[in-house]
Amino acid sequence: MVDLQAVLDSIYKELTPRIGEGKVADYIPELAKIDPHQFGMAVVTVDGKIYRAGDAGVPFSIQSISKVFMLTLALGKVGEGLWKRVGREPSGSAFNSIVQLEHEHGIPRNPFINAGAIAVTDVVMAGHAPREAIGELLRFVRYLADDESVTIDEKVARSETQTGYRNFALANFMRAYKNIDHPVEHVLGVYFHQCALSMSCEQLAKAGLFLAARGSNPMTGHSVVSPKRARRINALMLTCGHYDGSGDFAYHVGLPGKSGVGGGIFAVAPGVASIAAWSPGLNKVGNSQLAAVALEMLAARTGWSVFGD
Amino acid sequence: MVDLQAVLDSIYKELTPRIGEGKVADYIPELAKIDPHQFGMAVVTVDGKIYRAGDAGVPFSIQSISKVFMLTLALGKVGEGLWKRVGREPSGSAFNSIVQLEHEHGIPRNPFINAGAIAVTDVVMAGHAPREAIGELLRFVRYLADDESVTIDEKVARSETQTGYRNFALANFMRAYKNIDHPVEHVLGVYFHQCALSMSCEQLAKAGLFLAARGSNPMTGHSVVSPKRARRINALMLTCGHYDGSGDFAYHVGLPGKSGVGGGIFAVAPGVASIAAWSPGLNKVGNSQLAAVALEMLAARTGWSVFGD
Amino acid sequence: MVDLQAVLDSIYKELTPRIGEGKVADYIPELAKIDPHQFGMAVVTVDGKIYRAGDAGVPFSIQSISKVFMLTLALGKVGEGLWKRVGREPSGSAFNSIVQLEHEHGIPRNPFINAGAIAVTDVVMAGHAPREAIGELLRFVRYLADDESVTIDEKVARSETQTGYRNFALANFMRAYKNIDHPVEHVLGVYFHQCALSMSCEQLAKAGLFLAARGSNPMTGHSVVSPKRARRINALMLTCGHYDGSGDFAYHVGLPGKSGVGGGIFAVAPGVASIAAWSPGLNKVGNSQLAAVALEMLAARTGWSVFGD
Amino acid sequence: MVDLQAVLDSIYKELTPRIGEGKVADYIPELAKIDPHQFGMAVVTVDGKIYRAGDAGVPFSIQSISKVFMLTLALGKVGEGLWKRVGREPSGSAFNSIVQLEHEHGIPRNPFINAGAIAVTDVVMAGHAPREAIGELLRFVRYLADDESVTIDEKVARSETQTGYRNFALANFMRAYKNIDHPVEHVLGVYFHQCALSMSCEQLAKAGLFLAARGSNPMTGHSVVSPKRARRINALMLTCGHYDGSGDFAYHVGLPGKSGVGGGIFAVAPGVASIAAWSPGLNKVGNSQLAAVALEMLAARTGWSVFGD
Repeated sequence: MVDLQAVLDSIYKELTPRIGEGKVADYIPELAKIDPHQFGMAVVTVDGKIYRAGDAGVPFSIQSISKVFMLTLALGKVGEGLWKRVGREPSGSAFNSIVQLEHEHGIPRNPFINAGAIAVTDVVMAGHAPREAIGELLRFVRYLADDESVTIDEKVARSETQTGYRNFALANFMRAYKNIDHPVEHVLGVYFHQCALSMSCEQLAKAGLFLAARGSNPMTGHSVVSPKRARRINALMLTCGHYDGSGDFAYHVGLPGKSGVGGGIFAVAPGVASIAAWSPGLNKVGNSQLAAVALEMLAARTGWSVFGD
Repeated sequence: MVDLQAVLDSIYKELTPRIGEGKVADYIPELAKIDPHQFGMAVVTVDGKIYRAGDAGVPFSIQSISKVFMLTLALGKVGEGLWKRVGREPSGSAFNSIVQLEHEHGIPRNPFINAGAIAVTDVVMAGHAPREAIGELLRFVRYLADDESVTIDEKVARSETQTGYRNFALANFMRAYKNIDHPVEHVLGVYFHQCALSMSCEQLAKAGLFLAARGSNPMTGHSVVSPKRARRINALMLTCGHYDGSGDFAYHVGLPGKSGVGGGIFAVAPGVASIAAWSPGLNKVGNSQLAAVALEMLAARTGWSVFGD
Repeated sequence: MVDLQAVLDSIYKELTPRIGEGKVADYIPELAKIDPHQFGMAVVTVDGKIYRAGDAGVPFSIQSISKVFMLTLALGKVGEGLWKRVGREPSGSAFNSIVQLEHEHGIPRNPFINAGAIAVTDVVMAGHAPREAIGELLRFVRYLADDESVTIDEKVARSETQTGYRNFALANFMRAYKNIDHPVEHVLGVYFHQCALSMSCEQLAKAGLFLAARGSNPMTGHSVVSPKRARRINALMLTCGHYDGSGDFAYHVGLPGKSGVGGGIFAVAPGVASIAAWSPGLNKVGNSQLAAVALEMLAARTGWSVFGD
Repeated sequence: MVDLQAVLDSIYKELTPRIGEGKVADYIPELAKIDPHQFGMAVVTVDGKIYRAGDAGVPFSIQSISKVFMLTLALGKVGEGLWKRVGREPSGSAFNSIVQLEHEHGIPRNPFINAGAIAVTDVVMAGHAPREAIGELLRFVRYLADDESVTIDEKVARSETQTGYRNFALANFMRAYKNIDHPVEHVLGVYFHQCALSMSCEQLAKAGLFLAARGSNPMTGHSVVSPKRARRINALMLTCGHYDGSGDFAYHVGLPGKSGVGGGIFAVAPGVASIAAWSPGLNKVGNSQLAAVALEMLAARTGWSVFGD
């Protein structure tokens, strides 16, 4: 077994000169204010050990990584029936593209592009007022991370609401196809709040540990999903988790993962560990440049790629 | 460790009543003649044991599965420079779509859709007459399978040549973008011959064993590619190996794999085994219906999914 | 010179057995209630004579025909600068498609598809509250028709607001590209009211007479636009006025025209007459089936086609 | 009546300083050799008078303008049945786009984009060897122009054959949808020869005069098509004759017309005159820059726009 702390330390040391690379997301004003000179990483193994590097304890806006948690909630509510509302295939287009939605009559390609995540949010809202749905998600994530200090950044949520025209377009378009049941402003209210979840690498790695550990969190003993469902969520992350850079991430890193425009990437080494890396600067497909590099280094040095050692 | 032969026997038994399901590919006249009532499966483990079920010894037209072998040859010739000619992302469209090619100026999305495989073929042909390139591929596959009896079915190759208008369209289109160097008829001549490779499940599983075994064939001791390249080819198979059904295959089976319209599917359990399943009837996205079901059963019963057990 | 009243009478007589053909637009609930068994037609010549047939005096929802009047207003406000906000080419897609908008970065193809008309509305609103903009349009149309009884049907406007999800999608999408300046709800508020303009064939033919008469209304003496601008608006109607049926309308009728889903078609015989025909049943591209046939008959019997007699 | 010769002289004089503007088509090597410093114009009125300016007598490659003649032949052969093979709507995309063809299953949008013209050529070939079809077209054009000196430039035809990969893609793609009956090389052989027709402005204006004169050539007395068909061909030219610049040409010039990448534009003032203008430099949508300007000037100064004077 490799010395994980040594691996993390070496990655951090090698990447230190590059911290600040990439371009901070600027289409959400509140995110544009983030200092790009930050980098953190955390690994939690299935036997409950935690390894940290850099700013592993600094909360950041997890943005689209939250789609994994909302998907988990939705599958818990409606099971495989969810797939009538959203597909399971990579999209071959940008995270906020609307073209596919017209060609496929309002059914988004997968739950990890914006349109798909909005449809998933609509599913989770059934029977709930928006505020309740937000509360449910926040409780769920705190429960997963076993940490009551996880919060939602209201300023970020508001900032997204004020500038999220494309998301309003996507939601209205799906509503035209009757693939959104609730009022669009309600659904997007919940959606923008989920994107505004603020978590540190350490919290994130702990919250997602169940995906590495057959559906249960070995640190808390909580059973979250069945082993089969954990596998399936991992499969979705691998094929669709990085928008139109999913193929590239699989090629270079070889782990199921989900990125967010806040600069975070969450990844899973099934049966071994869950991982979170964060650095705000993004590459041109909208994934964190340094977090992706850090994960590639980690996979190479640990042999954790799902595609062979 | 599960009793693999028992697993294969049980799968075969359970599927027997369903043999004949799906629709044999009919756009290539020679393939349309195949008797759909056939099913075979073979597993070769990295320690060199072979397990068989049904028609595991019957040769069939491997069609697009050959793209994996041609890609391996091309990477051997030009290395990572190959990615200037073809992308590594899932396409989000049908195997023979030309739309993406126009939107992305003649660069196919990945080496496993037709356009991408034709570009890869063009790369392998550099410095070769068509006949030599075909010979090189055949020798390579025989070497991989350690079996000189692998052949190319000339009737199938001819049948594809006579009806492959869409492939002529794709190749000419790429040539217009200067992404094909050789005369289109030469490139397609080689391409149609590679598609016409005729192999049994057993031969196929043996030929692809190197992808499960860190790049080397443990049965022959031949080193084919580096461990890193083996991982990367596996990653490409997982994200792009089943056209617009890749996400679904990952979701249900959880193994890197490549399908062909001849009804075959080749899959890899990294570090464990290589697998081939075959039944001619296809589902609506063009993958073998029963071979996919068989692989889902196999993954479920062995815990081989790369996404967790 | 043909006897116009005789021509109209013969058309009406021949079409009477077919009145009721086609399918009333049902995506706007208020429009779905219309009795399909209605047909009217009015012709106003440049020397001020009026000819009528059938329900020429019955007001109907002019819907997209209003785009011609709003375009005229917008050109009056910003002149040729308008074309930075919207194109002048046929779209080759449906009236409410959003695909083109993504491919062309938020610039609609022409002012007669929904997206284009929404952008034009946004231009007209500059410096106005929504209610003022609606008032301005209503005054303008009354002035053109020289008829103070033209109204806006509030029930239809409300019905569109409640179900116009696709238009909300289009507007938000353009706003994301900064091609909409005002709040989306305001712009669509105005847009839905313009679509709800209620006019009879006679009122419509009179209102549009300036387009047949070098930009001035010969009945009132009002100068509306320059002769050059009148020609240009006619050109836009001919190439783009019937969505993806524009080529067909030019082929069969040969007059610049604009249709609406309320079943009306407005057309211009430059230098000769303006024409309005109406029957609620639509053909499959969304244009009035009988109004189109009536106009084809009229053009054939009068030799008014702009493409030769 | 304006003094046409004076109008032509003034246009020629005003444009003289600009001769050489635009960019000569370079994707066909033989065309790239043309001296851009040429400009010609010819007008033939329905009473048989001919007016000339500049290089009106210099033969040039008419390229896509030939599609008008081939369409006329095809309509003569199969009548309105032609529209089962090709549409009549503007395409909203480039002249050589293949995207639409996939979305609409092998039926080109109109006869004036490359795909449509290739399908039309295939229709004309029925029952003919390629050489005969070429001969038939050449005889037809000579008959229309009443001039036996019209030729086909074999060098240009050969040059197109050697570089026409996109056209090969289009034809093969349509063949895959069974919308091409003859061998692709035969159809394109004829197609490339028709594009290589070499005519002067004067010859071209004479050849197309029938479209301005109710289907008959008043200079020769030959009846070519019915008045109705002449109108319809004019309608097609207006809506589709300049690819994705058709709307713009209608807006600025207001005459049915057809352009070619050789720098020629043929236009019709129905009931009045036929016009040809030529200058090799193209604008960015592929139409002759100066020929378009010359036609705009001509329409403005004569009041010939079909959209009003």
